[in-house]
Amino acid sequence: MDLTPATAEQRFVLTHAAGIETLAEAERFADATPDLLDAILTGIGDFAAGEWRPLTRKGDTVGARWTPEGVVMPDGYPAAYRAYVEGGWGTIGSPAEYGGQALPFAVATAVLETLGTADMGFALAPTLTVGAIEALTHHGSAEQQARYLPKLATGEWTGTMNLTEPQAGSDVGALTTRAEPVGDGNWRITGTKIYISFGDHDMADNIVHLVLARTPGAPAGTKGISLFLVPKFRLDADGNPGAPNDIRVVSIEHKMGLHASPTCVLSFGDNGDCIGELIGAEGAGMRAMFTMMNNARLNVGLQGVQVAEAATQRAVAYARERVQSARASTGGAPVAIIDHPDVRRMLLRMTAQTMAARALVYYAAGQVDRATLGVEGAKTRLDLVTPLAKAHGTDIGCEVASLGVQVHGGMGYVEETGAAQYYRDARITPIYEGTNGIQAADLVGRKLVGDGGAGVEALFTEMEAEVGHAALRDLLNDTRAVARWMLEADVDDRLAGSYPFLTMLATCTCGWLLERQGRALDQVADPDFVARKRAAVAFYLDRIVPEARGLGMAAMAGTGGLYSLSADQFAAG
Amino acid sequence: MDLTPATAEQRFVLTHAAGIETLAEAERFADATPDLLDAILTGIGDFAAGEWRPLTRKGDTVGARWTPEGVVMPDGYPAAYRAYVEGGWGTIGSPAEYGGQALPFAVATAVLETLGTADMGFALAPTLTVGAIEALTHHGSAEQQARYLPKLATGEWTGTMNLTEPQAGSDVGALTTRAEPVGDGNWRITGTKIYISFGDHDMADNIVHLVLARTPGAPAGTKGISLFLVPKFRLDADGNPGAPNDIRVVSIEHKMGLHASPTCVLSFGDNGDCIGELIGAEGAGMRAMFTMMNNARLNVGLQGVQVAEAATQRAVAYARERVQSARASTGGAPVAIIDHPDVRRMLLRMTAQTMAARALVYYAAGQVDRATLGVEGAKTRLDLVTPLAKAHGTDIGCEVASLGVQVHGGMGYVEETGAAQYYRDARITPIYEGTNGIQAADLVGRKLVGDGGAGVEALFTEMEAEVGHAALRDLLNDTRAVARWMLEADVDDRLAGSYPFLTMLATCTCGWLLERQGRALDQVADPDFVARKRAAVAFYLDRIVPEARGLGMAAMAGTGGLYSLSADQFAAG
Repeated sequence: MDLTPATAEQRFVLTHAAGIETLAEAERFADATPDLLDAILTGIGDFAAGEWRPLTRKGDTVGARWTPEGVVMPDGYPAAYRAYVEGGWGTIGSPAEYGGQALPFAVATAVLETLGTADMGFALAPTLTVGAIEALTHHGSAEQQARYLPKLATGEWTGTMNLTEPQAGSDVGALTTRAEPVGDGNWRITGTKIYISFGDHDMADNIVHLVLARTPGAPAGTKGISLFLVPKFRLDADGNPGAPNDIRVVSIEHKMGLHASPTCVLSFGDNGDCIGELIGAEGAGMRAMFTMMNNARLNVGLQGVQVAEAATQRAVAYARERVQSARASTGGAPVAIIDHPDVRRMLLRMTAQTMAARALVYYAAGQVDRATLGVEGAKTRLDLVTPLAKAHGTDIGCEVASLGVQVHGGMGYVEETGAAQYYRDARITPIYEGTNGIQAADLVGRKLVGDGGAGVEALFTEMEAEVGHAALRDLLNDTRAVARWMLEADVDDRLAGSYPFLTMLATCTCGWLLERQGRALDQVADPDFVARKRAAVAFYLDRIVPEARGLGMAAMAGTGGLYSLSADQFAAG
Repeated sequence: MDLTPATAEQRFVLTHAAGIETLAEAERFADATPDLLDAILTGIGDFAAGEWRPLTRKGDTVGARWTPEGVVMPDGYPAAYRAYVEGGWGTIGSPAEYGGQALPFAVATAVLETLGTADMGFALAPTLTVGAIEALTHHGSAEQQARYLPKLATGEWTGTMNLTEPQAGSDVGALTTRAEPVGDGNWRITGTKIYISFGDHDMADNIVHLVLARTPGAPAGTKGISLFLVPKFRLDADGNPGAPNDIRVVSIEHKMGLHASPTCVLSFGDNGDCIGELIGAEGAGMRAMFTMMNNARLNVGLQGVQVAEAATQRAVAYARERVQSARASTGGAPVAIIDHPDVRRMLLRMTAQTMAARALVYYAAGQVDRATLGVEGAKTRLDLVTPLAKAHGTDIGCEVASLGVQVHGGMGYVEETGAAQYYRDARITPIYEGTNGIQAADLVGRKLVGDGGAGVEALFTEMEAEVGHAALRDLLNDTRAVARWMLEADVDDRLAGSYPFLTMLATCTCGWLLERQGRALDQVADPDFVARKRAAVAFYLDRIVPEARGLGMAAMAGTGGLYSLSADQFAAG
């Protein structure tokens, strides 16, 4: 269960997908020097492998536990979390004025990747804190920022996102949690939220809940939603955690995986005394929440990278150890299964897909930083690739985790190897933070049609100038044709093909970024790195890219047939 | 968690994929009249939905438990198993001379499907018993058959398969369990076997273990392996279970799913007193085991159908209940999510893939019966489609179970809905009974090259005469080209492309069988059945078939690149 941090790979992809050196030319990111990057990547690798990794099996087998006094993390987690805070790992991307290092989001992405590869469930705590920091930075008052950001920036306090209610999942606008003014500028919150990751735990001094709620007289739907900051402990006059707020942890979910992450049902204001503060303007809650959600979506895509990396390392290690049968082509003594062609196919597919997801997510992270710098087109590009990174990154996480089980054979199905844990853990990622179906709808709706196709055409044009591999050029042309078809199609036809289109566009983008990495290998000295990358890039371009072309017909099939049967007929035996 | 037995669908597929009416024209299967078929399908549906289905959540949450006295099944399972025996459901396909009904294997397949849709883990007990019956019928002496088959035929006793040892998984020839003659015609067995499904339980009066072992002086590898019958309780002079044999249940595995099925580690002969009987000739164990395994492989492919059917029913029911958001195209009130295009895509994909897997497995089952009748070419065809049914059927089971989780959104990840159970249960099926990679190797090795491509060409020719859909014709041509390439390729290149080739050939075969079903719909009166089948067939042909064409390049890419890096380089960070 050892973890080998993917330091060299991360460093390479920061350069060739996130364009970190270009970012560092800007005054704002001048601190991101090569020396500092190396120190950070090495440092977080040592920390995560040494302090977090040993916990991950316990996180799965013991898991977070609900008690009447609150959620208790498995032994070792509180101390490991404190070590993370004390090591300053929470501050990488946090604002400088509140004690953060204000390094590029891409660098924070690499740090978070390593933490999550060590323990994906655990790393969800910092992931959510980042979202709270984003929301406060962009939408909080100066006074709110001063009171909350310093502690969030270090990770001493953690953050949560409270959107979902039993009747309001993907349809956030259906939520009913209420907020009423109490007269002193504060608000009284009443309602129940579900699926609140790290909604309670015993690792930090306070928890800052960001809660969507309706104010009196607010219009129906998303326009009537406001964002509130609701601390677990109200701050006293000195800004320290004081009296507990009226928030009850009703239960935690019994989930298939991700057991280290307590998924809470929170009841706000059982005793009419849950006090929160409005963030931004009344009715502007969805906008603020999207600020959190966009980067959170990238970080969920990053969880795909995390679990894929962990599953691949585990499978490669097992395949090198497990001796079984002679090679069919040579006969002789039994060999390690890594030498059998179909096992190689699986391992190289895992390796290539992991690299593809990483390239895509880091590329998106680099666009976050370019948008911060105000680079022209960066925000549009970021908006376009965010659903790709979230959905395709997590699809890859699930696929690679499944291949990891398969490589282990029967040992993959017993829990002791850990391969099954990755498979179970990964499966939440296509669901939360907007299901992958919602991502696909966002892609073909808001992102594709929103600007009349200009954004996606700009991406195609940029890729076209660079792409050389024949199959990839074919895929690019096919995908472009689908995009143009989508622009003319009616909304239902577009949605019916949204998922296959997303997979095509994501695969095309990954192929572009990986082919670019392949071209950069002549600058790399390490022959092992070069051999692995070259094999993975070739596998991706020669085998995975052509697969995606097969999705073109489904992408353009429209609703034809989908609505030819009634809901009752769907259930006919 | 209700189960709606897929009775009409099963009846239709028995006709159009298994050709049950043609089979019933033979004297041997004359009992398989339409009236009897209807009675059996309806009867097993009522039985499985009423007696087995209510247990399946308990089977998952409580599971089989190891105790020092043996494995204890969850409450209700022993009684439900006895009801199965008393209902005569075990006898459907069993030999008539031992109390069985000797109906076609295809009919037994439909019965087993329904049992496994109700509770896949539980249905593994009868599944394994079928294997033991097969082995004894074909390889046992008349005296062995007389002593064991009557009780196995009814299911009063259950059977197991004991192949795997810690160092001998896919490489069965590496096993070391020993058998030594004791002088009275019996053998003393010593060794440890792992992954023995239903290796112990408290539901039947005896358990008949079929155990592969080596005899003194036997050659190395598979040629030195013999098959032994080792009962849990030795038979007394009257043929009743008597003294316990020297078999110890060391432990049961802690698995990701399939908790109702105890996966045992069995130690034979700890006290030097484990007595078994040789089945067939010394050294002929592998041949006998293949008799069991071939049909067992079909029955594992059938598990893919079982879990896919159950997951689809669950997801359709949820999607009809769950109201969330208005249709993007129409606005207005929120609708049940089954009305959203991408949810329809998922549900119709689940439906179509389930039908595809069922068609493939029933087709293979029909070939078992044709081979029994001695129909020319049937055995060759069966050998060819067995790896397709096993591997592609189980791949579909996993895919459909995953889509089922996705349709449920967050509710799919919490264990209470059961969607997660299907996802966990399904994942063993691509592994056991020969991993799907082994199936692919079997396909391109023994089955494709073994007869110089004659068998697969015969299938292509038969399909070509019938296939009309353009995309399916394209896939057929592509797949045929890959097959011809494979025949010329060297063994490593063939193996490197074996998995994508298997998927192509299986998809092509499923498309052929489904298009045929579509043509038969004008004979069907039920408009709901017609609407559902027609939509699923169209989805399969228009969207899933074209995807498989994308695998052609990977199938013919050969080993190129797979061996360009060393095992060490695979593990490079």
